[in-house]
Amino acid sequence: AQMSLEQGYEARREFDARYRLLLRTVEDPIVFVSVSGGRIKDLNDPAAALLGSSREDFIGAIFANEFVDRGREEFIESLVNAAISEGSQPVTARTRRGQGEVAFVPHVFRAAGERVLILRLDASGTRDQRSTGGQ
Amino acid sequence: AQMSLEQGYEARREFDARYRLLLRTVEDPIVFVSVSGGRIKDLNDPAAALLGSSREDFIGAIFANEFVDRGREEFIESLVNAAISEGSQPVTARTRRGQGEVAFVPHVFRAAGERVLILRLDASGTRDQRSTGGQ
Repeated sequence: AQMSLEQGYEARREFDARYRLLLRTVEDPIVFVSVSGGRIKDLNDPAAALLGSSREDFIGAIFANEFVDRGREEFIESLVNAAISEGSQPVTARTRRGQGEVAFVPHVFRAAGERVLILRLDASGTRDQRSTGGQ
Repeated sequence: AQMSLEQGYEARREFDARYRLLLRTVEDPIVFVSVSGGRIKDLNDPAAALLGSSREDFIGAIFANEFVDRGREEFIESLVNAAISEGSQPVTARTRRGQGEVAFVPHVFRAAGERVLILRLDASGTRDQRSTGGQ
């Protein structure tokens, strides 16, 4: 069934609200990064704490700059590759201002014509991601 | 600056995509419940596992029915009250099909004209929620 324009508008507004509350509610550290520019689009407080500053400080920042010795393009490329090929070695990096080694669980999606990485961060670093189950 | 209709549409589409990916990516068990009907609007796999069945099984189900001895209206009311009054005792309940006692970290928000609860579930039950930090 085709939604009316107004119903569609309301439905999308609801997803917007759900997104914002969900990001605030979860304890997993989460970062959204634009693939094309390599900049942080959004993140939550647990992720900001892990990277070593406030949330406001990181929005719009170049993600690779927050890590030691990671080039902007090769870092994003390695995260996208890890997102595409399941079962590969987890990508890790050392934070510049934060708590040392971080491992990334990356997924990539397309929205509004651009590719976006969603990253779950894990401060335990080199631990095998596949053994860290949901509960 | 006022967005054009098309820009607004694309922006909302992006939040929709971000919401779906975020809910799939997090390991925290999360459930969205409609305040008016008490039905589950959405949840992720970790939450479904905690409640004792598959995600598909729970969408649209009456949330209170998944717990022992909780009335539909009083249960939702106690979660909304806990969401509004920070620092109150955490609400807990025993799952009917799942892994025993669950504690809830509730927030309430309004979207598309209805009130929605977002709940983070904690299987450790009666543990003090305020001591379970992000990292």
